[in-house]
Order: sequence, then C-alpha cells, then structure tokens
Amino acid sequence: MEPSEFDPTALMLVAELVGTAVFAASGASAAVGKRLDLFGVVVIGVLCALGGGALRDVLIDAKPLLLTDWRYPLVALVASLFVFWFHPALSRMRTTMLVLDAAGLALFTVVGTQKGLDFGFAVYAACIVGVLSGIGGGILRDVLSQEIPAVLREDFYAMAAAIGAVIVAVGARWESMIGHWTLALTAIAVIFVVRLVAIRYRWEAPKPKI
Amino acid sequence: MEPSEFDPTALMLVAELVGTAVFAASGASAAVGKRLDLFGVVVIGVLCALGGGALRDVLIDAKPLLLTDWRYPLVALVASLFVFWFHPALSRMRTTMLVLDAAGLALFTVVGTQKGLDFGFAVYAACIVGVLSGIGGGILRDVLSQEIPAVLREDFYAMAAAIGAVIVAVGARWESMIGHWTLALTAIAVIFVVRLVAIRYRWEAPKPKI
Amino acid sequence: MEPSEFDPTALMLVAELVGTAVFAASGASAAVGKRLDLFGVVVIGVLCALGGGALRDVLIDAKPLLLTDWRYPLVALVASLFVFWFHPALSRMRTTMLVLDAAGLALFTVVGTQKGLDFGFAVYAACIVGVLSGIGGGILRDVLSQEIPAVLREDFYAMAAAIGAVIVAVGARWESMIGHWTLALTAIAVIFVVRLVAIRYRWEAPKPKI
Repeated sequence: MEPSEFDPTALMLVAELVGTAVFAASGASAAVGKRLDLFGVVVIGVLCALGGGALRDVLIDAKPLLLTDWRYPLVALVASLFVFWFHPALSRMRTTMLVLDAAGLALFTVVGTQKGLDFGFAVYAACIVGVLSGIGGGILRDVLSQEIPAVLREDFYAMAAAIGAVIVAVGARWESMIGHWTLALTAIAVIFVVRLVAIRYRWEAPKPKI
Repeated sequence: MEPSEFDPTALMLVAELVGTAVFAASGASAAVGKRLDLFGVVVIGVLCALGGGALRDVLIDAKPLLLTDWRYPLVALVASLFVFWFHPALSRMRTTMLVLDAAGLALFTVVGTQKGLDFGFAVYAACIVGVLSGIGGGILRDVLSQEIPAVLREDFYAMAAAIGAVIVAVGARWESMIGHWTLALTAIAVIFVVRLVAIRYRWEAPKPKI
Repeated sequence: MEPSEFDPTALMLVAELVGTAVFAASGASAAVGKRLDLFGVVVIGVLCALGGGALRDVLIDAKPLLLTDWRYPLVALVASLFVFWFHPALSRMRTTMLVLDAAGLALFTVVGTQKGLDFGFAVYAACIVGVLSGIGGGILRDVLSQEIPAVLREDFYAMAAAIGAVIVAVGARWESMIGHWTLALTAIAVIFVVRLVAIRYRWEAPKPKI
C-alpha cells in the first residue's frame, strides 16, 4: 500500500485503534485486579482507552473521535471484555500490564502530537497535547480506581512521553526527508524503549531534598 | 399544553431541571454523610448536579447549559441547601439516596441521548453521550469525596443507563409513530426500574474468574 | 504605561502568569510533601497551574491559553522546578502554601470572571466560570494526590472566590466609573483577605445538623 504509506490519517487510524485496545486492556486488567464486576471492568477499560483521546480532542476543539468513529468504542469494549473473560490472569501479570501500558503510552503520545500539529498548534503546544493524550487515559484509570496516578509514581513515565512528543513535533519540520512513518515509528519506539528500560533498570528520578 | 407535548426542548428542560435537583440532592446527601460543612455540601451538590451535563455539552461542543440558563445552577444550589438545612437525615437514608440517584441517572441519560441525536451524532455516539451525562455527575461526586465511583461498584448502574440510551436512540427512528414523550418516558421508566430492581434483588454481574 | 493601564488583556496576562506561578508552586509543594520524585512534582505542579484555566477555556469554548501562549506552561514548569530544587522546605511550611494558594485563588478567579464577561456570558455565568478557574487547579491537585479537595474541607474557600467573582461581574457595569484595575485589584484583595482571615481566625461554616 504505497500511497497510504505517507498518509498520516492511515497511520493515525491504525495506531489509535491499537493504542485504544492496549489501553482498554490495561484499564480492564487494573479493574480485574480490583475484583470489580463485568460492568466495572468494561466501564474503566473503555474510559481508560478513550479518556486520553477525548481530553485531547476537547482541548484542540476537534470532534471527539469516540463520537465520530464507532471503531474506537467498539475496540475498547471488545478489548475490555476479552480481558475480563479470557485473561483475568492478566491482573496478576504486572509485567504484561506495564508493557501494554508502555505501548499505549507510546502510540497515543505520538498520534496525539501529530494531531496537535495537524490542527496548527505550535510545536510546544503539540507536545503538551501529545503528552496529555498519552497520560490522560492512565490518569483517569488510576483516579477512578482510587490510586495515585502512575504518571506521578512511576519514574520516566511522563518523561518518556515528553521525549517522544518532542521528536515528533521537532522532526516534523524535516518530515519530507525523514518520511512520516519513519518519524512516527521512531518516536513510538523511543517512548516504548525508554519506558521499559526505566522500569527494568529502576531508573530513579531525583527525590526532593529534605 | 398540547403543542409543547411534542416539543423536545420542553421535555428536555423539565427533565433536566428535575434531574439537576435530584442529582444535587444526591451529591449533597453524600457530602452531609461525610460531615462536610455548608460550602462543601453546596460545592459537591452543584458539581454533582451540573458535572454530567457539562461533560456532555463539552463533548458535543454545545454551549454548557449551566452557563446559558441560570435555572440549572439555581436549582442545583437550592436543592443542595435544602438537603443541608432540612434533611441531614437524608444522609442516613441510604435508600432515599439510591432512589434519587436512580431517578437522576434515568433523566440525565435520556435527555443526554436525545441531545446527542439533536446534535446529529450517530445512534451509538448518542448512546455514549447519554450514558456519560447520566453517570458523569455521580462519578464526579464519588471522585471528589474519595470513593471508588458507584458506577464501578454498583451492579447494573451504567448497564441500566446503556439500556435506556439504546431505547431512546434506536426508538427515535419510529418517534413519529411512538411519540416523543412516550418514547422518552418509557426509557426513563426502564432505566429507573432496572436500576431499582437490580438494587432490590441484588442482581450480581459476573465477577472475573481467578 | 498609561494606555495599558486600562487594557484588560494586559491585566489578564500579568495576573494569569503570576497566578500560574503560585498555583504551580502550590501544587509542586504538595507533591514534594508527598515525597514524589522530580517528574511527579513537575507534572502535578503544571497540571495544578494550568488545570483551572484549561477547564475555564474548555467551558467557554476559548482556545486553551496553555496551547496558544507558551509563557503559561513555561512559567508553570519553572515554578515547579524552582520549588523542587530550591524550596523543598516549602512543603513543611503549610502557611506559605496556604498563602500561595490564596493568592492563586484570588488571581485566577478574578481573571476567569473577566474572561467569562469578555466572552459575552451573563453575570451569573461569568461568576461560575471565575470560581471554577479559581478552584479547578486546586481540585485537580488534590484529586491527583488522593486527598479530599481543599475546596470541600477548607471553610470559605469557594466562598471567598464566589464573593470576588460577584464583585467583578456586578462591578463591571460601572467599570467606566470605577476603572478596570481598581475593580480587579479590589476583587483580588477581597478574595485574598477573606481567605486568609478565614484561615487565621478559623471561621467555621455551619456543619449539618445530626
């Protein structure tokens, strides 16, 4: 599919649907871990998957994707039900959840940053939009399940997203040379790797002096 | 009042004002139960009453009703003060709160779904908007009072809203035959009854397998 | 600078930047008190500083200032880092935090009310917008750090904001006589003083009767 290879909307669609599924799975897993019932798992899974994007769209004043494209809520719903019925074990696999969450963070941040640029916002603003769409769903998930948001506890969470957002927003100026997919996939890979390496090697951000 | 009988805006106004009052009462009751003072009770009551509608209006990009029609904040304020001064006992009547909450859920969900349709959103999108306006206020109330949202704990809460939203959104296609009020009141009754029956008979949604 | 003396936008810019800095400091101090690391302190500081304004802009459908003017996020970032590196002690100075918070409350409420009026909303609506932009950041800070929002616990918090908002919104009718700065600074002073006096003398709002 040569043509669509440089079509940002195609990348956005695919990436957002995958991100939606993994965030829904991450949210649903957290809910399963809290022993919530079917509806609780679905609601938190769906809100977690669509919250970041909705926050992004409301901020840049775009029509919320979840209301204009039925595939997003459907994917979120299916992924949540899948986790509920076939993988309650997921809730005990903390690693799986962290990896899913890192993937969703990477995908949503990059897609969100690009959407910010597409809507004509400045580089710094596109980065904020991107980071917010990346961390929004997870914050919603944690606030609803009464936990201090991972973004505040986990080292290099928002930081990983910020790095990727900057790569996309700044790199966009040379996009014609780099290529849209190359740029996007690079940023996604960077966020994903930084996040996982930070977890694996327990990178510690400085704590405040007493 | 024959003419207004088929006027959706008339139904929306009445239903939303009633829903606003009951949600404010529900939020204020929860706040009274938490022993918050006058201001805390009023703030949580008002936010709980207007939060769902504001969320809905921001998502569908409508001018927030609470900013364009003074009756909503006024009703929410009065209902909150009423609960504070005349019915602190309410806070001990868990049943009363649950019934109030079920009524608000039914009214806001139906009105929200119709507004979604009026704004030209697809059937599925109108359902999401309706459910969100129905559960938004309660989620806000619980998050602010540091509880895991009822929508996640209580069985058949979001589910009852979803059923009613589907009735309104799908039934709208035959509205000319069914009649606007008939359709709306049916959906409101269904949500209300399903919710109360679920509470009364402790309907249990499946829990995740270990 | 005679001309700009009556230029509302000038007042709004200065006041909002100062308010952004103090709210970021207030949020960062709370985060330092929770022993969060560098990123957690920055994220909560920035969200706390920009949350109220974003909420206001989304409600009145204005382009979020944080996305159109890089100075806001920059000021919020710098203030958060400043608190993290140079004043971890702040977290132990409860008084300092309360004063900073009162200043931010006063500035954001007044600026938010004026923006509501500038956008053509009714007096009561401008007051709601103003109060929400004043208390929004603090609510976000407390919800994210898992505390019952100060606005619900502290007496005369939302109340102080409401008084100032009414002064601005109602006084605006005689603004030509009173003068823009006079009106704004009076309201700011009133909110600030009422809030501090309420804290100092432990003004108690009535508690619900049992």
